[in-house]
Amino acid sequence: MSIQNNKYVINLDVDGGDNAPSSVLNGAELYLKDNQNVRFNLYGRKSIIDFHIKNLPLLLNFSNIIDCEGVIDGNLKPTEAMKKEFRHSSLAKSISSLKNQPLEATVSSGNTGAMMAYSKVFLRTVENISRPAIASLFPSKNHPVCFLDLGANSECDENNLYDFAIMGSIYYQILFPKSTCKVSLLNIGSEELKGNTIIQKTHELLKKSKLINYNGFIEANNITDTENHIIVTDGFTGNIALKTA
Amino acid sequence: MSIQNNKYVINLDVDGGDNAPSSVLNGAELYLKDNQNVRFNLYGRKSIIDFHIKNLPLLLNFSNIIDCEGVIDGNLKPTEAMKKEFRHSSLAKSISSLKNQPLEATVSSGNTGAMMAYSKVFLRTVENISRPAIASLFPSKNHPVCFLDLGANSECDENNLYDFAIMGSIYYQILFPKSTCKVSLLNIGSEELKGNTIIQKTHELLKKSKLINYNGFIEANNITDTENHIIVTDGFTGNIALKTA
Repeated sequence: MSIQNNKYVINLDVDGGDNAPSSVLNGAELYLKDNQNVRFNLYGRKSIIDFHIKNLPLLLNFSNIIDCEGVIDGNLKPTEAMKKEFRHSSLAKSISSLKNQPLEATVSSGNTGAMMAYSKVFLRTVENISRPAIASLFPSKNHPVCFLDLGANSECDENNLYDFAIMGSIYYQILFPKSTCKVSLLNIGSEELKGNTIIQKTHELLKKSKLINYNGFIEANNITDTENHIIVTDGFTGNIALKTA
Repeated sequence: MSIQNNKYVINLDVDGGDNAPSSVLNGAELYLKDNQNVRFNLYGRKSIIDFHIKNLPLLLNFSNIIDCEGVIDGNLKPTEAMKKEFRHSSLAKSISSLKNQPLEATVSSGNTGAMMAYSKVFLRTVENISRPAIASLFPSKNHPVCFLDLGANSECDENNLYDFAIMGSIYYQILFPKSTCKVSLLNIGSEELKGNTIIQKTHELLKKSKLINYNGFIEANNITDTENHIIVTDGFTGNIALKTA
């Protein structure tokens, strides 16, 4: 995130997610009540934002409005979202702006598939990383646990999972610099022979890696009670675990 | 289950599971305190059962002991379990006995992989069903929900998942004869396009099926609040969902 006048700059996809735009704008106002270290770029339909923001005095002070056209529906396919007519939506514009402002961040609770598609096409991944992943911090008894992928990739091979282990480790070390970053792989048992072919292949890759502090398999009942810092899984399984929890 | 003198006959794998054999024998005694409609066949090492059963007066009255040799460790691979030296174990003998007593049942909390291997080799599956599955009833707000596969098959194709839908429906209708047996497929979203290739192929098979009352996708956050009666998934995902819950 860039710091302008000691402020972080966050792009908000005002049209994205359930109960948008009011939930997004009210959430930003709520945040500003406790923290004024942020400036928000509000991406959305200006006339609608103008209508709501009248009653949100802090947001009025700490934001810019960037007028957008068209709304990305939650059911829109990622391939559809790439069409010209959606390129001026709040989601598309708030993400593509990061290309020239690489230290800012975009927050959206809108269509996940479209968000991943825009991110991949507009921003591209880091060299040697083929797919982005969705990560979140889970509470655990010992420390927060970075859990990924939570739904960006419903099919993953061992190389994707290996990449997720690296991305998770780097992300965790940025958030908690003193951490040792132990990585574990989500599996249906802790014994060596457990799991499917891709899990077994990933296990071999991680064991050999000198970049990762690999700690073996973890079972889902230990997610909130683990010595590990990063838990790696494919986006299908991760999403099921997240929503079951 | 067969009924001899108005009693169900249950085979217990006394050597299987954590804290065996005492947990298994104490559990049987506990059951008999409230229900005496059962006769247990206790499969295990006779000398050890004899030692424990002295203090379990009901079990002493309502059971037979079948002497077995060797114990199946929790870490033993299914292929290892098939070796001659384990064929006289409590798990192997309690399952193989069902071949000649098809109306009895075996209960084991031991090595799942070995249990599945013995079941498949000794008892075989029903015609046209290639793989057994592990099913359990989950509580939901409306009615119990049959959830399968919970871990027998860590890799499944669309035909296996279709078979699970049929097996689940039949099992549910035996337990709750008046039910309509709505089947849903566990997925990471409820929209048509969601999920991986196998999920999409299974969705097509289930939509076309005249044997199944298919109700579409279900997300993991709705497992305990569903209109459906059967939830189908592969054994990897099912096991992760079960252990996360």
